[in-house]
Amino acid sequence: MDLAMVGLGRMGANMAERLVRGGHRVVGHDPSEEAMTKAAEKGIEPSASLAAAIDALPSPRIVWLMVPAGTLVDKLIAELEPLLSKDDIVIDGGNSMYKDSVRRAEALRQHRIHAVDVGTSGGVWGLQEGYSMMVGGETAIVESLKPLFESLAPAADKGWGHVGPNGAGHFTKMVHNGIEYGMMQAYAEGFAIMERKDFDLDLHQIADIWRHGSVVRSWLLDLTADALAKNPSLEGIAPFVSDSGEGRWTVAEAIELDVSAPVITLSLLERLRSREQDSYGDKLLSAMRNEFGGHAIKKG
Amino acid sequence: MDLAMVGLGRMGANMAERLVRGGHRVVGHDPSEEAMTKAAEKGIEPSASLAAAIDALPSPRIVWLMVPAGTLVDKLIAELEPLLSKDDIVIDGGNSMYKDSVRRAEALRQHRIHAVDVGTSGGVWGLQEGYSMMVGGETAIVESLKPLFESLAPAADKGWGHVGPNGAGHFTKMVHNGIEYGMMQAYAEGFAIMERKDFDLDLHQIADIWRHGSVVRSWLLDLTADALAKNPSLEGIAPFVSDSGEGRWTVAEAIELDVSAPVITLSLLERLRSREQDSYGDKLLSAMRNEFGGHAIKKG
Amino acid sequence: MDLAMVGLGRMGANMAERLVRGGHRVVGHDPSEEAMTKAAEKGIEPSASLAAAIDALPSPRIVWLMVPAGTLVDKLIAELEPLLSKDDIVIDGGNSMYKDSVRRAEALRQHRIHAVDVGTSGGVWGLQEGYSMMVGGETAIVESLKPLFESLAPAADKGWGHVGPNGAGHFTKMVHNGIEYGMMQAYAEGFAIMERKDFDLDLHQIADIWRHGSVVRSWLLDLTADALAKNPSLEGIAPFVSDSGEGRWTVAEAIELDVSAPVITLSLLERLRSREQDSYGDKLLSAMRNEFGGHAIKKG
Amino acid sequence: MDLAMVGLGRMGANMAERLVRGGHRVVGHDPSEEAMTKAAEKGIEPSASLAAAIDALPSPRIVWLMVPAGTLVDKLIAELEPLLSKDDIVIDGGNSMYKDSVRRAEALRQHRIHAVDVGTSGGVWGLQEGYSMMVGGETAIVESLKPLFESLAPAADKGWGHVGPNGAGHFTKMVHNGIEYGMMQAYAEGFAIMERKDFDLDLHQIADIWRHGSVVRSWLLDLTADALAKNPSLEGIAPFVSDSGEGRWTVAEAIELDVSAPVITLSLLERLRSREQDSYGDKLLSAMRNEFGGHAIKKG
Repeated sequence: MDLAMVGLGRMGANMAERLVRGGHRVVGHDPSEEAMTKAAEKGIEPSASLAAAIDALPSPRIVWLMVPAGTLVDKLIAELEPLLSKDDIVIDGGNSMYKDSVRRAEALRQHRIHAVDVGTSGGVWGLQEGYSMMVGGETAIVESLKPLFESLAPAADKGWGHVGPNGAGHFTKMVHNGIEYGMMQAYAEGFAIMERKDFDLDLHQIADIWRHGSVVRSWLLDLTADALAKNPSLEGIAPFVSDSGEGRWTVAEAIELDVSAPVITLSLLERLRSREQDSYGDKLLSAMRNEFGGHAIKKG
Repeated sequence: MDLAMVGLGRMGANMAERLVRGGHRVVGHDPSEEAMTKAAEKGIEPSASLAAAIDALPSPRIVWLMVPAGTLVDKLIAELEPLLSKDDIVIDGGNSMYKDSVRRAEALRQHRIHAVDVGTSGGVWGLQEGYSMMVGGETAIVESLKPLFESLAPAADKGWGHVGPNGAGHFTKMVHNGIEYGMMQAYAEGFAIMERKDFDLDLHQIADIWRHGSVVRSWLLDLTADALAKNPSLEGIAPFVSDSGEGRWTVAEAIELDVSAPVITLSLLERLRSREQDSYGDKLLSAMRNEFGGHAIKKG
Repeated sequence: MDLAMVGLGRMGANMAERLVRGGHRVVGHDPSEEAMTKAAEKGIEPSASLAAAIDALPSPRIVWLMVPAGTLVDKLIAELEPLLSKDDIVIDGGNSMYKDSVRRAEALRQHRIHAVDVGTSGGVWGLQEGYSMMVGGETAIVESLKPLFESLAPAADKGWGHVGPNGAGHFTKMVHNGIEYGMMQAYAEGFAIMERKDFDLDLHQIADIWRHGSVVRSWLLDLTADALAKNPSLEGIAPFVSDSGEGRWTVAEAIELDVSAPVITLSLLERLRSREQDSYGDKLLSAMRNEFGGHAIKKG
Repeated sequence: MDLAMVGLGRMGANMAERLVRGGHRVVGHDPSEEAMTKAAEKGIEPSASLAAAIDALPSPRIVWLMVPAGTLVDKLIAELEPLLSKDDIVIDGGNSMYKDSVRRAEALRQHRIHAVDVGTSGGVWGLQEGYSMMVGGETAIVESLKPLFESLAPAADKGWGHVGPNGAGHFTKMVHNGIEYGMMQAYAEGFAIMERKDFDLDLHQIADIWRHGSVVRSWLLDLTADALAKNPSLEGIAPFVSDSGEGRWTVAEAIELDVSAPVITLSLLERLRSREQDSYGDKLLSAMRNEFGGHAIKKG
């Protein structure tokens, strides 16, 4: 198939490359010269503008957006809309908030343009191992894009699926990331307990043992074993954990749906906590203890 | 009544003083010379040894232990046992683990000595405002001690009660402290949220407003307002919160009883967290994110 | 002072009555005939329409809204706007989301109308004990309303204050309610632990003991003691806990501010959990245990 | 090698069978006639008594206990001790509390008998896929047992290791199970969120998509997909989740080590919560809301 890949950062470039390897023709666009040059080396046709990229495609045009979630997606869709025609397809493969995807699909529908939202998992390993994709959109449209998903996935019939209407793809990916937060935190706590214990355990060895035959084996554990092999004491790494939005959305969504999700929620809160260097709440607790019990305050 | 107060630290000395004010005769013993001298100034009769303190009392002897929970209580009871006779009473007013109180009461019963466990709340304010006391023990024995409790309590008929058999007093006090952890953490979180918000709120003012007419008014809030009046920015206070045992016991007890108590539990965990300067778990999370997503690691 | 009270439900009627008792003239409006009749009996001047209520006031007009948060407030402000003139004041004393209050104040400012947001605590007890009020708005405007707050508060100089600009009043009240959730949950857990323990404790007695001299004494504990006095076994009460919005907002705000607030958050989640009669998550856990361990599944 | 397997329940019988397949000679003992008959069919030599089993072995004797954790292990060791001699080896492959394993090893050392603790993961799938084993004990002893571990593990050099001194094996397995609780709860919450959402998602399809290429792929997810394939709506399964001890121990250990492990802890609490049909705490919350706000109580 022919398509335009808009956004040739780490994710977009790798996906475009995997599509090229799958026999597809990919026109690429990115504001960065460097990204464009690199993409060209991988067999992606660089295009200097959005308009030029669209022009280079047969009808119906397929435009795959692979850019950071948020206003940039809205901006690009606004630019694309006059360039596109009836029956063209805009795919958002980034980590957009699913409500935004529902809204955008409705807006594009006014112009008879089809939207598809693809929740994409796999990170930097996707190029080699294939991407897991949860696809939201109209059935006929998703069906028409099947060759793309089959090339991107780990196998033609594995790791991807049409999960529901517009928004359902990003919704499912959002929950996927919420689960990921919980799993990561579970491992992190377990290893922290073992690290503290005076059995002098070799944490890399244990991660490696668990990779085979244990109930907790997983791809995240494989990565943990890798990380511990390289840097067993995690030296030089700050205890500072970022979050990228989807955990927050999952927590908010669970509350909106009246579902109690304590573990996913606490996983997010621990990340916030990791970034509080000087917690006001903890200072106040210390001050309160001093007030009622005369307990000594540790000087800060 | 006549009694011996063993342990004239902050709590023991204040309680002995309040008993003296209530018209009771208090023989006091403490290994610290300074504590003994101070006690004497308050009308407490200093006694150089446990044996001398016991000798100074009419039968049945009443010995009130006010010492740190743990092995010291066992040691003192072992020393007291040969000095005491049938019908004498040993009161443990400290923060003993309630299972220890059950065990000790059974052991003393072999010698026909009566044990009473008194969970005591009130901290440094008890001398002035009276102590809240939850009493565990045999009904007739607790009844016989009524004049003591009436003097120690905020009012003769307020703030104390016989709550159950041996151990029930310390059990109730343990749960009291678990609740205290949860309340303190709730306030701490609320004030931390307000402190972070860019409304430039005066947290002392808000604590003070809430003290009158609001749903969250409480004695802990009064103390919080005091603390914020003295040191609104909590300068010089480390975000480091100690815990003294009863929170842990409450958490363990809840689990033992199959009662889910997330708020009391998380209050304890936040105190542990406040003392982790360099969380291994958070470092591992950061390393994992780097492995799968190529997310930058913050250097530590 | 003269003012219109719009909304004569439980809260509005009580506040209007307390204002009348304080010597103010209150014109009242409510769509319910019954509410209007009752209000008239308390010395409130019933007014058949918003327009009539406004007409009955001297300039600058003061309109106090005491209605459920949400679209009704917007609707009323839209109706009021053409009826009001430069320098008039609209007070929102309900539980509005603080961001709405910021937005509304900005919109009213275009018409030179002043907005004031009053976070009001005290519930059904406010009529008798006075209300705790956190006030947001312009300094001169809030100052001009002082006689109203002095009458509504527990005492002229207690329980109320001007805490910041528009929105700050409702923000502070929102956090107040978040803290309330945490405190309530802490008590609930503690009493649940005591109820489960085989010491056969009298929970009303214990609540009553703690009311005097203990660290956990509070107004919420007073109410708990009342509830347990009336119905010690809580018979006929479903384990089903509603929530009214401000807890959710506090949780969302904490996350937005990157403040970890686990106890307030878990207090909300426990309320959601109380309403899940047939948790899908728990069923799935049971199914998973069966898959890997052959553990028996309990039939549902 | 020659060894006795004591306990031929699901785990013991499967492990003995895998050892027989690996070329080892296994003498088996179990109080159940049926278990003994079945074991004989798999090539295990049934032995009517512990003494007979020991007698059937060459020196040094190797006895592998595979029985429920707790007093039964102590009872069996007490029976074995007079039957064993210097240099014999007792392996505990069950889920014993690690502190018990430390204590037992010390006691056996007085008799010059060696103890080895093997934390064993793999459940009902171990026979076919191999067991993951974390081994605690003296280096030379563990080394001498290598052929057994190589046969039981998924591959000779995969899925097992000598992790530390006596107790370290069971400690590591305990933490493994704590992590398992957290992972399971993370999945359960995520699927519960998706189940509640009105996108009409096919949860089995999504589990299956995620198995390939996604960040959350794992063996537990494979099992979840299996469970959802068989029973997508989880009909007939009660939302009632048991726990088997190691989760509790992990939570207690984390607190003892001053490590905050909120996700593992909350995973346990959710299991407790799943078994509370009629939460006293939630009733009390409802009663409290009624007291201060006049909020309606749902009749129970």
